[in-house]
This record gives sequence, structure tokens and C-alpha cells, in this order.
Amino acid sequence: MPSSSTPSIIRARDLGIPLEGTPGARNAITDVEGVLVGHSTIIEGEGALRVGQGPVRTGVTVVLPRGLKHDPVFAANYTLNGNGEMTGTIWVEESGFLEGPIAITNSHSVGVVRDAVIAWQIEHKLYDPVAPGVFWGLPVVAETYDGGLNDINGFHVKPHHVFAALDSAASGAVMEGAVGGGTGMICHGFKGGIGTSSRKLDENAGGYTVGVLVQANHGKRQHFTVAGVPVGREITDLLVEIHPNQPYPPGAGSIIIILATDAPLLPHQLKRLARRIPLGIGRVGSIGNQTSGDIFMAFSTANPGAAKRGGVANLNMLSNDAIDPLFEATVQATEEAILNALVAARTMMGINGNTAHALPHDRLREVLGKYNRLSE
Amino acid sequence: MPSSSTPSIIRARDLGIPLEGTPGARNAITDVEGVLVGHSTIIEGEGALRVGQGPVRTGVTVVLPRGLKHDPVFAANYTLNGNGEMTGTIWVEESGFLEGPIAITNSHSVGVVRDAVIAWQIEHKLYDPVAPGVFWGLPVVAETYDGGLNDINGFHVKPHHVFAALDSAASGAVMEGAVGGGTGMICHGFKGGIGTSSRKLDENAGGYTVGVLVQANHGKRQHFTVAGVPVGREITDLLVEIHPNQPYPPGAGSIIIILATDAPLLPHQLKRLARRIPLGIGRVGSIGNQTSGDIFMAFSTANPGAAKRGGVANLNMLSNDAIDPLFEATVQATEEAILNALVAARTMMGINGNTAHALPHDRLREVLGKYNRLSE
Amino acid sequence: MPSSSTPSIIRARDLGIPLEGTPGARNAITDVEGVLVGHSTIIEGEGALRVGQGPVRTGVTVVLPRGLKHDPVFAANYTLNGNGEMTGTIWVEESGFLEGPIAITNSHSVGVVRDAVIAWQIEHKLYDPVAPGVFWGLPVVAETYDGGLNDINGFHVKPHHVFAALDSAASGAVMEGAVGGGTGMICHGFKGGIGTSSRKLDENAGGYTVGVLVQANHGKRQHFTVAGVPVGREITDLLVEIHPNQPYPPGAGSIIIILATDAPLLPHQLKRLARRIPLGIGRVGSIGNQTSGDIFMAFSTANPGAAKRGGVANLNMLSNDAIDPLFEATVQATEEAILNALVAARTMMGINGNTAHALPHDRLREVLGKYNRLSE
Amino acid sequence: MPSSSTPSIIRARDLGIPLEGTPGARNAITDVEGVLVGHSTIIEGEGALRVGQGPVRTGVTVVLPRGLKHDPVFAANYTLNGNGEMTGTIWVEESGFLEGPIAITNSHSVGVVRDAVIAWQIEHKLYDPVAPGVFWGLPVVAETYDGGLNDINGFHVKPHHVFAALDSAASGAVMEGAVGGGTGMICHGFKGGIGTSSRKLDENAGGYTVGVLVQANHGKRQHFTVAGVPVGREITDLLVEIHPNQPYPPGAGSIIIILATDAPLLPHQLKRLARRIPLGIGRVGSIGNQTSGDIFMAFSTANPGAAKRGGVANLNMLSNDAIDPLFEATVQATEEAILNALVAARTMMGINGNTAHALPHDRLREVLGKYNRLSE
Repeated sequence: MPSSSTPSIIRARDLGIPLEGTPGARNAITDVEGVLVGHSTIIEGEGALRVGQGPVRTGVTVVLPRGLKHDPVFAANYTLNGNGEMTGTIWVEESGFLEGPIAITNSHSVGVVRDAVIAWQIEHKLYDPVAPGVFWGLPVVAETYDGGLNDINGFHVKPHHVFAALDSAASGAVMEGAVGGGTGMICHGFKGGIGTSSRKLDENAGGYTVGVLVQANHGKRQHFTVAGVPVGREITDLLVEIHPNQPYPPGAGSIIIILATDAPLLPHQLKRLARRIPLGIGRVGSIGNQTSGDIFMAFSTANPGAAKRGGVANLNMLSNDAIDPLFEATVQATEEAILNALVAARTMMGINGNTAHALPHDRLREVLGKYNRLSE
Repeated sequence: MPSSSTPSIIRARDLGIPLEGTPGARNAITDVEGVLVGHSTIIEGEGALRVGQGPVRTGVTVVLPRGLKHDPVFAANYTLNGNGEMTGTIWVEESGFLEGPIAITNSHSVGVVRDAVIAWQIEHKLYDPVAPGVFWGLPVVAETYDGGLNDINGFHVKPHHVFAALDSAASGAVMEGAVGGGTGMICHGFKGGIGTSSRKLDENAGGYTVGVLVQANHGKRQHFTVAGVPVGREITDLLVEIHPNQPYPPGAGSIIIILATDAPLLPHQLKRLARRIPLGIGRVGSIGNQTSGDIFMAFSTANPGAAKRGGVANLNMLSNDAIDPLFEATVQATEEAILNALVAARTMMGINGNTAHALPHDRLREVLGKYNRLSE
Repeated sequence: MPSSSTPSIIRARDLGIPLEGTPGARNAITDVEGVLVGHSTIIEGEGALRVGQGPVRTGVTVVLPRGLKHDPVFAANYTLNGNGEMTGTIWVEESGFLEGPIAITNSHSVGVVRDAVIAWQIEHKLYDPVAPGVFWGLPVVAETYDGGLNDINGFHVKPHHVFAALDSAASGAVMEGAVGGGTGMICHGFKGGIGTSSRKLDENAGGYTVGVLVQANHGKRQHFTVAGVPVGREITDLLVEIHPNQPYPPGAGSIIIILATDAPLLPHQLKRLARRIPLGIGRVGSIGNQTSGDIFMAFSTANPGAAKRGGVANLNMLSNDAIDPLFEATVQATEEAILNALVAARTMMGINGNTAHALPHDRLREVLGKYNRLSE
Repeated sequence: MPSSSTPSIIRARDLGIPLEGTPGARNAITDVEGVLVGHSTIIEGEGALRVGQGPVRTGVTVVLPRGLKHDPVFAANYTLNGNGEMTGTIWVEESGFLEGPIAITNSHSVGVVRDAVIAWQIEHKLYDPVAPGVFWGLPVVAETYDGGLNDINGFHVKPHHVFAALDSAASGAVMEGAVGGGTGMICHGFKGGIGTSSRKLDENAGGYTVGVLVQANHGKRQHFTVAGVPVGREITDLLVEIHPNQPYPPGAGSIIIILATDAPLLPHQLKRLARRIPLGIGRVGSIGNQTSGDIFMAFSTANPGAAKRGGVANLNMLSNDAIDPLFEATVQATEEAILNALVAARTMMGINGNTAHALPHDRLREVLGKYNRLSE
């Protein structure tokens, strides 16, 4: 029986990890008003890999920046290590705008997801034509590799999975762990997946919210660090169990990170936030390995209507001199989102009986205690 | 009856355009040894647009840098205007390598083509696994928009079209005009499509070859320039005929350009070549319009084996001080490839009877003569 | 006797070159309201080079984006070929703001000019301290190489020359040719230097102005093109006369280009304009040679007060969909500014009797006539 | 009496900080063979600031990649936060080569240092002319702001200080703390300055050395972290004492980092290392503040002769698949170099009696012990 993908309701900060900063109401990317998240989780079969038949441990996660309204948001992307894919970045870089949903899936399903997002935009008329009847979509779709647990070359993600994720996208609490695009992912040698977190700035810093969502499939065990504590060197067992015919290289994965904020940032300022995301990854220990696709997209829901066709739009821009608290929130929320993915994910068995173990909560607490780093 | 996509055997320089530099044997990207080109052309139906049923005027063109051998080439990309898609660039930028074929198609078929390229690589074992059984593909797939002539939202490109283009890829002469990915394209208000050209340097400049292939779907008529002559302001008729219910904005298209060379250039030097590609586009008049995706990939077939897994590879690098002739070849071959696309393409009728007219060869010669710019 | 640096009052369009678009009142960068330009020209001595003593043919040109008011402007930079220097770009790229004057000088005087700009800012309190008493300047200073005519290793530019250029900066007509930083420059084998031009958009395109100022020291003769006509292959004499002991490589120079506009563009949009500047250079024939430093800075005088310290600034942003006319103006004004530099410059003799000849106006007209390209 | 700038011989790892990895023989950038480091330290006067007269607490530090031989090295730069200056990066980015020494000084002396480096190169013929007699220098000069302790607007760095640093550059042990360009610097609220460290890879990872040198003037106290321990929240006193008339904003500084390696990396691979430098900064707690210029240059001493003029050079390139140990070394050596700067620097009093306190070694050990993070 495959492991359940139901996320734990225990989250990283519940375990006494001394995390910095103040989260938003749900400690999730959806704390940024208007942001919706949806998942399609595909878990089918067990046992030996038969390409095209399974077992299947994969899915799609989508982030809708401004809900179901077509109104592009300012955005920027950055890459720590580019062994991965995020489509649509060329247009984001050029225009400063992200025009539709972001989707995250497995490495070999980026294409089907991309075209399906276009079909969905056409179906729901969620686009602004260049001229009557003239529309081309350039969706942002990213991936991490789940071939350790999933029949990735079976191409099991279909357009209907994408439509389901998009149609079910919602505000409120976000499922974490082995769900959606994160279903088959592995992080620092434990079961990984989707995680999220947020920070709410003090009112005197503008009261803005920064939300982060990660699909965490990256990192070597020995680098795994929690609140400065070298947990990966203390918990050296519970490594991924891989069938001997299909060795799986540690650290071979990737991490896709989506950052949302309601702070009125322009594209070049959002790039500044995106450049700080590696500092959050670094707090959990990764150094951006060669085989990792560590790719990030940051957007701001401020300035609705900025992408009007023609004429001059009126905008707000946060002073660069007020940006430091957002940098700090970026680093903190990134760190916590990764930890949330690890804390939420449960042990999963996939193809060929390969097994990724859940991070053991009790042992994590024990190690934190050893280093006097348990918050009261 | 749809217009034929058979390319004319008349090419730009046959018309007396005074083009600079010395082309290679076939004046094609395939003059760079090892480079293969394949097309799948899909032309079906005529009359009113019925989404999902046609008419269809689209296809796929592929470029295989080193034939059917898996051996990554050094590569770099550059964008003049990013209203378009080229997947796979994040990994090219990071690693310096292009690891497989390049494919070009219509805007809404990038996804299906991308996943199909992966399937084809798996089928033919044309990849180098990170570890036994572990492979993720990050194909380079680009697009331009053919919705003026093609039922683009009908998603008519299927995996088998991609396989056919890949399996039929060949050295030798390259079909030009309304073929492959270029089937439904429009350029400077005339019928556009695929074009190619090459330059062979003097032996004392190294004797290297630079080959260019374009999918030309860009440019406004009034900017159209040939050998410095303002042809677009002399030939102002023969504009695209568009059904009144579906106006098509002039200059709304894009141009994808693939540059190949056998000169031993490193990735940062290939980026230097890619940055000169706009100068070739500029010679034909375009300024890189807002709605255009002018995206380029340059690669070098020198240094086979450079991408070995582990250890130290031995390489050759051309001195920066010897690079000027390659810059010049880049500009010249780009210019001529665009002109070849225009000269080869024949008048085509597509959806709703929309019609893109061929550039009239005789009138082009007439205008060149008026400005004393006909070569002998 | 050294040649005079008094600019000719004949400008490129007076010679019947068929230039596109509508210039502003003065056809100069100063048509953008608030932009000031100042020059310090240093011409001393003649005869054999004695390093440290002369002859001297150099200077400094400054552009003040918003006059003598400290109010940073949105800005962005781009480089076609980076064999040159422009300081201050790292902060422009990060912050989106250009905080003070731009200065252009010879290659070996960038340092003295840079520190002098800081001293001048301190002297005139033209800065906004990070905290009371805390200010660091990061001036934008660029260069081209004038060692063919000037005792460049004599380091003849002194702080007082910089102060003089800054203090004398003015709106109105701009001196062109062998003045300021352009004093000793060579372009396409003729005497080069400072040139400027502008374009005024139609009111229905927003009525914005784009102004360009170049310090032109680049290009090979054979590439020299005017209005599409291969002038450099028609006028092959009047090459630079260089003392045999000091050969000077053709095309070894550079071009610095400053673009100003009053259109409300954000930094990422200004980068889009800057990326089109090579298309204007390309119209005059250059391909961005290896030894050339082709470096550009674009800024917008719209949105005064955008750089307020703290809080939220209210801004205007032109729609991307309205940007094409600005792209076109950028290309046109760049082309004309280079031609203006060439048309204005008079023959100059420098070190060791080295001589750069002025572009002969009559012969230029003759060649244009041969190709039916003289405007009436 | 100003505090001494003589560096302590106690270094970070002597205090029991559990640092990862294996340092080279001297744990310094000079462990990379051929790399020389020189300092000019200028300490004069005490008491009230009189601009132009002092007190002076500044200097210049130089790094010569390949000693006194003119032979450019492959190089690449990266910026975490660009509120600072590093000249010469445009040419490094374009050419892939760093052609001469790197110098680091205070923010307002970059210009004088830059031109002096050119003068020194001319004096010593340490350049390769483009043509006989034709040379332009594009030196790499970076800065951090020392106006909290130094009369920065007095412009006290003179060409002779630059020559002295260059002429005295040596291999072997490197002075750390308040020396050279680091003389007046402040880091995480303690006295900062120059620090260095190195890592030597295992022979089975290639046996390469990575060396790092920092000029550390960055960071807020509350972010200061050592081996994961929140030292900055444990030691909250000993903040910089600043005269009330000249408040100095915490975190206002910058960090310049030079990375050297003998691993045969190409420019795009060196950029990959440079992108990991922020992860090392992050380990010491900084998030790249708005007012910080966190700018990095990485170079490789492998491939001597790669920059030959003309023809084809033969090179070695490390496989990307072998690069992870270099990423790890980069992060580790960066972290330790910053800590070495802090451990070496002694308390210094500067202008107006402003005082930056040394990091107290005993209290640091005490805090590490509290968190069970003292290595035995």
C-alpha cells in the first residue's frame, strides 16, 4: 500500500524549532491576499516499475497570483543552480509581468502541463488578447525530478490533472508534504514535497506579507541544518532506500520556490527578493548542487491594473530604503517552508519498493535539544 | 486548396541582392559538419476556422547539433525581445551545454513538442544518465505564433510529428519557406517561415563555418529593408489579408534563430555571437517589436567530448582576438537567412481564407535597381 | 597648430541624408527637459609624443539627468561589447536609479573623473545622505580610448576639468565633434567625437522625447554605412594617418551612448530601450568589434521624487504595449547622433603628427546620390 | 593613540569554532599558487574630523592573480547586493578574463586607485598591447565605506599607496583585520577588515585549492551567526560608538570578496562559484542589506596562456559533474574568511573618537559553549 499523502497537521514551528519572524494568519503563501493554491495528486499502484503503468507518485501544484482574475502581476525570477526548467521566464524578464498561473510538476511533464494551462486559459477566457482573437500563452511551469519514487517516463500527468489543480485552487490552508507536484519528492534524504510559510511585517515596516511555497526535492543529508544545528550529521540513518538496480544519487534533486508579496515592488525589486531566496535554502544547509534545479519566481499582488494595454498606469513603489524587512522575511519564510515540507511529509514507498522516510519529529527535537536550540 | 509548402529553389542571392561574405557549400546551417535539420509540415483543410478541426498550417522543425550522437555542445542564448518561449535555456546558461536537439514549433505546441523530445531521447537512449537509470531531459523548444493562418488553439501538433521531424533530420540542403515550424509564419507582412544561410571564413581567419537557421514570423512591412534599400516603403501592397472578424496586428510575430559554428568557442564567446544576431535582424529592418519573441541559441560543434562526466576535459578555445570575423559572419548569415525565408515562401491561404502573400521576386529586383543595389 | 574643436553648424540631416522620424527642437539630448550637457576640452601642444607633456587631445563630457537638482532618475544599462568601462553600473542595476551626473572621458582618466564627481557632489551637497553625514558616491563614468591622437598615458585630465564641465553644463544646443570627452576620438576611420540627436513622438504615441548623446570612437571604415548606402566602401581614402612607430588598429575604438527620455519608463523598460541601441549602431555599420567598448546608459526623467527615502512613491509607467515608438526613436536617434558626430568633427592632428580626417561632406553627398538616397 | 592594526595571530578556528572542510597550508588565498596579496595601511591622527586632514583610517589591499607575470586569468563576477562599486567587471564579463591586479579600497578612492593601477601596469610593462604602443587598462577596483572611522572625504589614498601595495605583494601569510583596504571597516557591529581562508580538496576530488579574501564591512549585529549559533543576539553590547553628530546606520556597510582557485574552471563555471559566495555570507548571518555592496570576483589560475592573442589556445576544463566539492569549499572558505577578519581585528578609534570594538574572543567561546558548538 502506498503511503498516504495526507499532510500532517504538525508543522515545523510546532516542534520547537526557534524560527525567526512573525508568520501570517495561516503561515502560508495564501496569507498574501488573492493567492490561490491547488493540487492534483496522482498516487497509483505499487511494486516493480513498469514504464507507462506505474507505480505513479506524482502530481501538479498550481499557484494563482490573483485568483481567477486575469490581471498580470509584477514578477522576477532568479536561479541558484539551473539544472532544471521553469518555462515562461523569458517573457517575465522582458515584460516585468507574470500573466497567469504558475504550475509545478515532475521533470518530464512540464510540456503537457504547459499546453494544458494554455487550454485552460482559453477555456476560461483568462487572458487579454493582443488584438481581437489573437492570444498566445507563455505559461510559467517548473519541475523537479521524482524518478526515485515515480514512473516518471510513463508520462502520467494528463491535461485533466492540470485542470483539476487549477479548478480546485483555493485560498486558506495549503496542503503540505507529499501532495501535488511534491508527491514523489525527496529532500535532504528524507521525504520532501510541498511546503509553505509566510511572514507579516510590523506595521511600521509597512505591514506587508511575504509568502513562500516550495517544491522541495533537493539537498544532501550531511548538509541538513535546522536553526543552525547540524541535524544531518546527527541523523545519518533513514536514508532513501533504493532498489539496487536503480541507484539514486543523493542531492540529485531540485527546489522550485514561489514567493508572493503584497508589498508594492517593481520587477527589479522583486529580483532583489529572489536573489535572497538562496540564503533561506542555505539556512537549511544546501549549497545548490550541480544536479539541482534551484529556480525561483517572485511576484507582487500590489498594483492591480498595472498591465493595462496602452496608456500610462499609475503605480506604487516601495522605497528601496524600506526593503530590508522584506529581505529578512524572504529568507525566514523560505527556511520555514522547506522545513514545513519535511515535517509534513510522511514516509512513502514508490517504484520498485523504493522508500523515502519521513523526518522523525521526535529525533529532530532531540537533536535540537542537544544543541540548546529548542524554543520553549 | 491550400498553397503548396514546397520551397522555391530560388534563393535570395539568386535575385541579385548584394550580400556580403562567402557562404558555405549549401549556404545552410548544415554546412557546419554534423548539424542535421528535419521538418514535419502539417497542412490540412481550408475555409472557416473551426477550433480543433482546422484549417491547419503548422509544424515542427528540429536542429540536431551533433547528429544522432549524444554529445552535448557548448551553447549560449540571447534574447532581443522576450515575447516568446525557448525552454531549456536555464540549464544552457548554467552548464554551458546544450544536451540534445532544438525544436521550433507554434506557440501553443511547445509543451507537446518538449515532452515528445524527451520521449524520443529515452526511446533512442540519446542521453547520458546522471546515475544508472536516472535521467531528466531539459529540451530546448522554441516557438512563434501562427494563429493568423493556423488553427493554433486546435493543438494539432502531436508527438508523432515531433518523432517524424527528428527521425528524418538530415544533412545537406534544407527546405525553406513554409515548412516545418515555419509553415504558418508571416514576416514583414509577406509569407515567412524557415530560412537558412552560412558563411565560410577565409583560411587565414581559421576557415570556420557559421550557419544560421531562422523561423521568421516577425517585422512590420514599413521596416523591411534589403541591402540597405527601404523595400517595405516601396512595396506597400500585398499585405496580409485577414478576415475582418480576426484582425491580425502587423509586427506581432517573432523570430527564433539558431546559430551553429565549428569554431572552438566557449559558452561566453557563443553568447558574444548571439548578441550580434540582432544586428543581422536589424539589417532586414526590424527593431524587435513589443509583441515579438526574438530569441536565439548559438552552439559550437567543436570540442566533442567536452561534456564528459567527471574529470578534466581538454578543450580548444579560439582567441577573442580572432573573433571579429565570426561576428561579421553572424550578422551576414542572419540577414541572408531571413531573406531566404522570404524568397522561398509562396503565397499561403489559411484559416478563414486569411492569405499571406509571397514576396514578389521581380518587384524586389525592381526596387533594388531603383537604388542602384543590384549586384551584376 | 591643432585643429579647432569648434563644432560645425552643419549637421547630418543638412546634408540630405534621408533620416527617419521627427527630431525635437534642437535635435539633441537636451530636448529632454532638464537634461544638461557640459564639456571640458583639453587641446595643448603638437608634434612628437612626450608622455606627460603631450600633445594633449582629450577632455570630459558630462550629462546631468535632472539638472542641478539631486533627484535620482530611473535608469538601466546594456553592453553590446564590453571592451571598456562604465563605472557605477552595479548600483544602477541593483537599485534601478542613476543618482548623479554621467561623465565620459578617455580610458585612462576614468578614475580621476570618478573621484572628482564625488568631490563635486560633496561640494555642492548634491546627494542624499543615507544617514546624517553618511554618503558614498557611486558615479557613472565611461570612456573611450584616444591614444591615437592624445598623450593618454600622460594623465592630463585633472579634477578642475571635471568641475568645469559640470559647472558649465547647460540646456540648449550641444557642441558636437571634437569636444569634451570626444576631443581625440576616431570613428569609422574618420574624425569622430561627440554627437547628439533626438526624436519627438507624435502626440497619439504620447508625445515623448528620446534624446541620445554619443562619444563615437568605434567602427571600421569598410563597415561605414549611411542610410543603407555602403559609404565606407566608396570612400576608402582619408584613413587615419598614424606615425609608423605607433600603428593604430582600425576598429579598435569604442562608443559610449547615453539615452534620455521623458517617457515614464521603469528600469526594466529602460533596459529594453538600451538593448535596441545596437540596432542604431548597426545602421551606421558597426558589428561591435572585439576591441570596442560599446556601453550604454538609458534614463528617464519622468517620475521625479521616485527615489524618496522610505515609504511608498507614486509612479507612472508607460504600458509595454505603447513602447514600440520609443524603440523606433531609440534606433533612429542613435543612428543620427553617430552621423552628427562624424559630420561635425573637423580634421585633427595629434601626437606624432597622427591625423584623423573629417568626413568630407561633399563626397558623402555624392555617394548618397549614386545610390539614389539623397533626400530632396 | 589609534589602535594598532597589527593582526592577531589568533584565527577563527583557534577559538574552537567547528568549521567544516580542510584548509590549505596557510588557510589563506595565497594557498592558491601564484596569488600574491599586498596591503597599504594608512593610519594617521586622532580626534575630531577635519575633512582633508584626518583622522585617517584607510588603505588599499591588492590581489595579484598570477604574481608579477602578465597572463590574464579566467574570471567571473557576481553581486548579491549592488550598493557598491567594482570597476572592470564589464570587460571580465565580456572577455572571460581578468587581466591584472584587483585592488580594494574605500568608497571614495576607487578612482585614484584605478588610474594608479594603470600607471603601475605601464611602468612595469605588465600588459599586452592590442597593437604596438596601444594599450588601455580596465582595472578591477572595489570598495567598501569607511566613513565611520576614516576621513573618507579627505581623499587620503594617493597613487604611491597603491604602488606600495602592489610592489609589496607577496605570497605566504596574509595580514588580517584592520589592514590595507580593510583598515577602517566594521562588520556585524564589531571591528572588521581583511580576512582570508582556503580549502584544499581531497585528491579524489581533484586536490584543488579554493582561496578567499574578504574586505568585510557589512552586517547587522542581530544577524551575526557563528557555526549556526546566534552570537549576535547573545552579545548585544560592544556596538560601534559613534559621535552623536554623525550617526552611523547599522548594516550600512559592504563586503568585497575575491575567490581564487587552481581548479581548471571556465568563466561560466567561475560564475557558478561566485553565485555560492552569498551562502557563505549567509552562514555568518547577513542577508545582503539594501545599503551593502556585496560584490564578488572569482578567478582561476589554471590554464596559463589561455589569453594568447590570436589562434587557438588549448585548455583544461573541470567537468561540471565534479564541481560540487568546489561549491562546498567556496561556502566554507567564505564563512571562515569573514570570521577570520572579525577575530583578527582589534578595537579601533577613528574620527571624532568613534570606536569599533573587537569581537571578544572569550565571550564568543562562551556563547559557542552555551550551544554545545565548541569543537574539542
